[in-house]
Amino acid sequence: MTREDLIAFLDREFPQIHEGGQTYFLEEIGPLSARMRMEYRDRHLRPGGTISGPSMMTLADLALYAAILAHIGPVALAVTTNLSFNFLRKPEPRALIGECRLLKLGKRLAVGEVSIFSEGRAGVVCHATGTYSIPER
Amino acid sequence: MTREDLIAFLDREFPQIHEGGQTYFLEEIGPLSARMRMEYRDRHLRPGGTISGPSMMTLADLALYAAILAHIGPVALAVTTNLSFNFLRKPEPRALIGECRLLKLGKRLAVGEVSIFSEGRAGVVCHATGTYSIPER
Amino acid sequence: MTREDLIAFLDREFPQIHEGGQTYFLEEIGPLSARMRMEYRDRHLRPGGTISGPSMMTLADLALYAAILAHIGPVALAVTTNLSFNFLRKPEPRALIGECRLLKLGKRLAVGEVSIFSEGRAGVVCHATGTYSIPER
Amino acid sequence: MTREDLIAFLDREFPQIHEGGQTYFLEEIGPLSARMRMEYRDRHLRPGGTISGPSMMTLADLALYAAILAHIGPVALAVTTNLSFNFLRKPEPRALIGECRLLKLGKRLAVGEVSIFSEGRAGVVCHATGTYSIPER
Repeated sequence: MTREDLIAFLDREFPQIHEGGQTYFLEEIGPLSARMRMEYRDRHLRPGGTISGPSMMTLADLALYAAILAHIGPVALAVTTNLSFNFLRKPEPRALIGECRLLKLGKRLAVGEVSIFSEGRAGVVCHATGTYSIPER
Repeated sequence: MTREDLIAFLDREFPQIHEGGQTYFLEEIGPLSARMRMEYRDRHLRPGGTISGPSMMTLADLALYAAILAHIGPVALAVTTNLSFNFLRKPEPRALIGECRLLKLGKRLAVGEVSIFSEGRAGVVCHATGTYSIPER
Repeated sequence: MTREDLIAFLDREFPQIHEGGQTYFLEEIGPLSARMRMEYRDRHLRPGGTISGPSMMTLADLALYAAILAHIGPVALAVTTNLSFNFLRKPEPRALIGECRLLKLGKRLAVGEVSIFSEGRAGVVCHATGTYSIPER
Repeated sequence: MTREDLIAFLDREFPQIHEGGQTYFLEEIGPLSARMRMEYRDRHLRPGGTISGPSMMTLADLALYAAILAHIGPVALAVTTNLSFNFLRKPEPRALIGECRLLKLGKRLAVGEVSIFSEGRAGVVCHATGTYSIPER
């Protein structure tokens, strides 16, 4: 699937991620990789002005999902089975970038990692790994 | 802190978790344990009518946070450093119960686990473990 | 499989775990549960007299594997896909007990957790979660 | 600490990792990174000729530990608090290379990841993340 196909697919199958105004944008798809950008709104903030954990979870999950679908096609039923997060620095109120790399794309399981950065800053704010169960085709 | 103290503290420090109407409720605090209940709204659902991963992340994080604060007092700056989730079954549209048990409550780190159930059903839908960094007192 | 069947199967398929003298013992199998005991030898110790992380990894992996095989039969090819460990206390030089509970036993994936204790002591020294891919039957 | 300092420190503090003959070698230390090589012996193999999970755990833990010590000095008491492994491919009987990258090196916690490869082959066989508690200095 191309980036345009993926965007159309995600918009159609997961309209709720745009609820309250679109903030998640698929920026790039490459070989076993994807980059997703998240703009923040007040609803994504926590006390102290940091961006919430669940917002970063959504960013990581979407980036991994997009990278997998780009290779296996629009399998809406690919299922997240594990997500693990290390929260490394408080993300200041800036857009977040999720850089995803697939480590394995097997017949039954896909595994990848996502490094989340504040836009324009070095230093990973959150690192995630995820596992997805791929339905039989 | 008693259950009433904790509820007042969470309401004051994390008002955004009640945005759109309160859905997270601290039901019980015990020795190294807590039980949190989450009612669902349309905004928590995903295609197919299941409750979203980020909603369960919030439930697990709150349950762990409440169990820790009950022992160490209102340290608003205790920081989540790791959260890991195994998604086991699709949660149907029912209230979710998070049963939290602290495994360690040290001077610098607290570690616990949360089993999330659909209310009135057996079978864990999601299992989480979390680590929190505790500031010096 | 009964406890005796499992012991015979593990001895036959994984003889290397007994190298240098048997130290891992399957003590009990129950519904979605297993208890494994590990005696220690000098080779399992680390500086300061604590039991090594890899020894606890083997204990957790064996306990989960035994609990899974007890239900699905001698599928030597069930494969560990994820293991996560929280190290909570330094295990003193005492036998270790791994109490395993399966959280899910699906057609393709099994997920469980293991709490490791020093024999005769309260307080989890290490908590593990694991995921296993089950081959088609 | 230089690579030579680190090798001398690890040899002195962790002699048991060389028991039965040295198989773990620190190949390189860089900024927030380390590369560790593991030769295998029969004792590291599992049925089917793959290299065991606990061997890879030791490789990942040593690589992370070396990368941390290179920056903070010989703090023998830095403690592993979490290790998580995704096992991606069966490692054939070849030397393993662990490429470690630190994601955070804070005052109290260090977090890093390790990609383990079979020497001379592409494709990660195991991916690990680890967290270490750093004692006050």
